[in-house]
Amino acid sequence: MRVVEGSAFVAVPLAGMTLAQMGAEVIRFDRLGGGLDAGRWPLAPNGESLFWAGMNKGKKSIALDMRSPEGRELITRIITAPGDDAGLFLTNLRVRGWMDYETLSQYRRDLIMVTLTGDRHGRPQVDYTVNPALGIPHMTGPADSDDPVAHALPAWDLIAGNMCVSALLAAERHRLRGKGGQEVEIALKDVAAATLGHLGMIGDVTLNTEDRGKSGNALYGAYGQDFVCADGRRVMVIGLTDRQWRGICKATGTIEAMTALEGRLGVSLADEGNRWRFREDITAILKPWFAQRRVAEFEAAFNEAGLTWSEFRSVREAVEKDVDLSTDNPMFSDIQQPGIGTFRVPAHPAVFNATQRSAATPAPTLGQHTEEILSDVAGCTGTEIARLFDAGIVQSPTFAKPRNAA
Amino acid sequence: MRVVEGSAFVAVPLAGMTLAQMGAEVIRFDRLGGGLDAGRWPLAPNGESLFWAGMNKGKKSIALDMRSPEGRELITRIITAPGDDAGLFLTNLRVRGWMDYETLSQYRRDLIMVTLTGDRHGRPQVDYTVNPALGIPHMTGPADSDDPVAHALPAWDLIAGNMCVSALLAAERHRLRGKGGQEVEIALKDVAAATLGHLGMIGDVTLNTEDRGKSGNALYGAYGQDFVCADGRRVMVIGLTDRQWRGICKATGTIEAMTALEGRLGVSLADEGNRWRFREDITAILKPWFAQRRVAEFEAAFNEAGLTWSEFRSVREAVEKDVDLSTDNPMFSDIQQPGIGTFRVPAHPAVFNATQRSAATPAPTLGQHTEEILSDVAGCTGTEIARLFDAGIVQSPTFAKPRNAA
Repeated sequence: MRVVEGSAFVAVPLAGMTLAQMGAEVIRFDRLGGGLDAGRWPLAPNGESLFWAGMNKGKKSIALDMRSPEGRELITRIITAPGDDAGLFLTNLRVRGWMDYETLSQYRRDLIMVTLTGDRHGRPQVDYTVNPALGIPHMTGPADSDDPVAHALPAWDLIAGNMCVSALLAAERHRLRGKGGQEVEIALKDVAAATLGHLGMIGDVTLNTEDRGKSGNALYGAYGQDFVCADGRRVMVIGLTDRQWRGICKATGTIEAMTALEGRLGVSLADEGNRWRFREDITAILKPWFAQRRVAEFEAAFNEAGLTWSEFRSVREAVEKDVDLSTDNPMFSDIQQPGIGTFRVPAHPAVFNATQRSAATPAPTLGQHTEEILSDVAGCTGTEIARLFDAGIVQSPTFAKPRNAA
Repeated sequence: MRVVEGSAFVAVPLAGMTLAQMGAEVIRFDRLGGGLDAGRWPLAPNGESLFWAGMNKGKKSIALDMRSPEGRELITRIITAPGDDAGLFLTNLRVRGWMDYETLSQYRRDLIMVTLTGDRHGRPQVDYTVNPALGIPHMTGPADSDDPVAHALPAWDLIAGNMCVSALLAAERHRLRGKGGQEVEIALKDVAAATLGHLGMIGDVTLNTEDRGKSGNALYGAYGQDFVCADGRRVMVIGLTDRQWRGICKATGTIEAMTALEGRLGVSLADEGNRWRFREDITAILKPWFAQRRVAEFEAAFNEAGLTWSEFRSVREAVEKDVDLSTDNPMFSDIQQPGIGTFRVPAHPAVFNATQRSAATPAPTLGQHTEEILSDVAGCTGTEIARLFDAGIVQSPTFAKPRNAA
């Protein structure tokens, strides 16, 4: 499968990379000098973008003058090049005219084009604007403050990117059955709005009068709470299911105390809703247990009992200490990313047991595959390619320097 | 396409529902009385789960005695029933023995089974434990507190659910090409760990000595900040790209002030990294502008200028005021969910232009399609079906009451 990607930032680059890590040939084209995300943070000490390296692993890169008619014609040829498994285009660039579906599909009738927009009106939206508009920050963060707290993880972008992958595969399945190509449009804001509905939040505010407020780090709707231990470490302990709940009480020796609490309250804590309603009473019983113990004192017992729990860590601690972020995990390998250095890089999380798991490969440098793409995909001759370089229509391989580096 | 789902909670139910909303026939089976998520919050005023209704839209439901040999045999027959577009099984139940891939694939060699686990060791993990373990709460929330803040949105579950969809479609594409079935295993923790890598966070802590700290609601790595306006409303304003940044300065009449700031600091704010490093200085210039104005005073001008911005709202405000959450958005329709009531329900966010967009359909009641599934999929006769009901192996349709309702 060959997919062409014209993109920037999180969602669409992630979609292309996910397909590349599942085995597709993915060609990302950029304007000369690199796209809008060429210098996106985090950066390596030398100023190269670790974000770009992370989001473009295993792709082929070509950089062209997107303002010149010749550059545009080349991009059109690359997107609409023949091949049963080609004619697949992912984009969030929203270029009207030469790069819209109407125009491109004239060159290849069975083109599949997946376009991610901000909102359904075509207005600009990013994760950081969609999230506040839909209310998630109002239910995030410490319960003793009314200030909304935005998530640090670009969750909507990550969800939308994965949805672009499944939408492209679904459209290609449709085409494989002889039903032709199509444009698929997805709006980031619609992805978030639909998710609110899926999680029951729209029904909640429609049918109930009370709003879901902030509840700190508590698990919503059942029991789950963070505790600070004697060594200052913080742990998260989950009592979502009956089994998990009984496990906590047993492991902490609080069965009797919880039974006494049930008697005082006149409710059963076997009901997850009661665990949620009376979470503060439950926490008051469990808090001293954790406060009096170091994590090392109960870690093994909790694991042996099959409890669902974890320790809070910084990313650095996780990378340094968690075996699942080490190369003991076959998903990870230490990779030399040209122009940046060596660090741990993930492959696709899914293990497809019919095939060998492919290790991650580095991101290309900007324009690294220019000659190969012009020759093999756009069908240019060697003479033509040399002229395109000379005329500055395409760019020689280079590291993706931030455009405005000081 | 027919997909069978044995599941609970967010990720796998979402995966099945996403496929159902793209047109697949999705059969969810549950144990008698309903699965672990039958009473998951939020609840309707009558105690029915809005979560369950949200996550199972458009599916067919059957409830069986999963502890009886006969119930297990029926589930096996349903999962492995013939059909070119069938033999697709999604699960997070992790039942060893009769319901693992090794056993099920004996009944249908080309079975595709996508299994979501907690971590790669098969240990229990949920969104609420994976997230603290990998460090995201340490970079979330107000900058003036060291306390980690967990996200309220089950982001990892939502991402993993969407990844289950694309993994299933990718495996089915492989099978369509005559390459057989397979098991696909995905661990929730691996999804999160891989995402850290994709976003550049693993490279960041490996190559840089300083950790990314908390920065409140600021956009990371460029400029984006929340402001409280004269009417007490809070807005988010984005200056991620050059164009967005210039737009903010122009719309707020702060071009000169920003130029003066550049002079004082000796840096160019055209560099996104400098906008991030000196975000507090920028915010000090913009803050009075917003503090002196009501949203209504600049709303139209901001939209006309194409700025990327939004207002903070609660979910209730969003549902009541945002046109994108109204039925003006073809993604939404007001649906009567049996046993609960009428509220606004989203279809799939993607618009596949080759086909008419299907409106959302309600979730089934537990066991609603028992007879149909036993007859059409498991191949039972009418007499057999009657006997199965009599013997209590299958359950008559019922609303998915919380198992432990007080």
